[in-house]
Amino acid sequence: MILHNYFRSSTSTRLRAALNLKGLDYDYAAYPLKEGAHKSPEFLARNPAGLVPVLEIEDGTHIPQSLAIIEYLEEVHPETPLLPADPVGRARVRALAYMIACEIHPLNNLRVLKHLSAEFGADAEGQKAWFTKWVRETFDALETTLAGSAETGIYCHGDTPGLADVCLYAQVWNNQRFGIATGDWPTIARIFNALDALEPFAKAAPPNQPDSE
Amino acid sequence: MILHNYFRSSTSTRLRAALNLKGLDYDYAAYPLKEGAHKSPEFLARNPAGLVPVLEIEDGTHIPQSLAIIEYLEEVHPETPLLPADPVGRARVRALAYMIACEIHPLNNLRVLKHLSAEFGADAEGQKAWFTKWVRETFDALETTLAGSAETGIYCHGDTPGLADVCLYAQVWNNQRFGIATGDWPTIARIFNALDALEPFAKAAPPNQPDSE
Repeated sequence: MILHNYFRSSTSTRLRAALNLKGLDYDYAAYPLKEGAHKSPEFLARNPAGLVPVLEIEDGTHIPQSLAIIEYLEEVHPETPLLPADPVGRARVRALAYMIACEIHPLNNLRVLKHLSAEFGADAEGQKAWFTKWVRETFDALETTLAGSAETGIYCHGDTPGLADVCLYAQVWNNQRFGIATGDWPTIARIFNALDALEPFAKAAPPNQPDSE
Repeated sequence: MILHNYFRSSTSTRLRAALNLKGLDYDYAAYPLKEGAHKSPEFLARNPAGLVPVLEIEDGTHIPQSLAIIEYLEEVHPETPLLPADPVGRARVRALAYMIACEIHPLNNLRVLKHLSAEFGADAEGQKAWFTKWVRETFDALETTLAGSAETGIYCHGDTPGLADVCLYAQVWNNQRFGIATGDWPTIARIFNALDALEPFAKAAPPNQPDSE
């Protein structure tokens, strides 16, 4: 398998953590977003949407969208499951993951921040305020949900790291780009620290990639 | 089951289409977003994130996030599947769904348009330009992906409507709020028209809900 990705991309971090948790080996192909590598004809042939990550599997199929890839890995490599066994638990974990994947990340990625700057004149402070607003809005709700549920354990759902955790871990790393600490969200902070102590997560973190700067 | 939702919410439309496709009955509870009903204490107790839809299932559990709900329904009501049987096909359908759910919808919902107006002074034209930009960016890629794949059939994946179709259908309806026609995307237009001719989809459309205005 070849992972087409970028060290700082938070969706890439999610996927690296999932691959590592499942103990799956992959080749690492880096696409420096700053240099527009994800808009090159070579990359667009892999994913017309021009977004990392893409997982190239053995038969040459290219799968885009980090959560689609992780669900695929869950189905073909069910050992070390990232979702619990019961449907209601699975729904809880997916909902936690989508809170981050659908409500924070899309609003805060590079293309949106650039557009905000080009069209609405957002400077560095304006970009930071935008980024922080969407993190805060969802992290406040996520904290309430996690802190108020008996199903929350060492990690987001019980004592086994899974799909919600890879999203949380990647988002907290992403927040650090704008200096957002986790202090206001004690449960999120506790879970992040527990995850960061696990080798599959630490190995997936942005600073530990071949293309890190 | 009780569907806590709003007629015009595109994530609610997705879920209604999925419920209808599976032939599942539900009670309809409406939350007029314009009046802030999704921020009421009563609704926040159902979903601290203050977002529709939420599905309340028989045991009283409230499941948020439309795609988490649809995956749950797929697991507990596997008849009339919304995902194909093979893992690579499932990954393709999920990736198409997430292109819409993660790359268009989060950028264009009401809270974002309001914030853009409050913080960056976007007027009606500015909001429309923002909305259109993110639709166009992803619909261009979606059109390329759908038109270029032998796996695309009458619908997004073969000749059975599924998860990608409920997302596409809801997004095209949502686009109409800003007068975006599907003319530039012939494959998307063809699939939308095929879906709109199916009763489970037409029944899920915004104008056909009890709270429609």
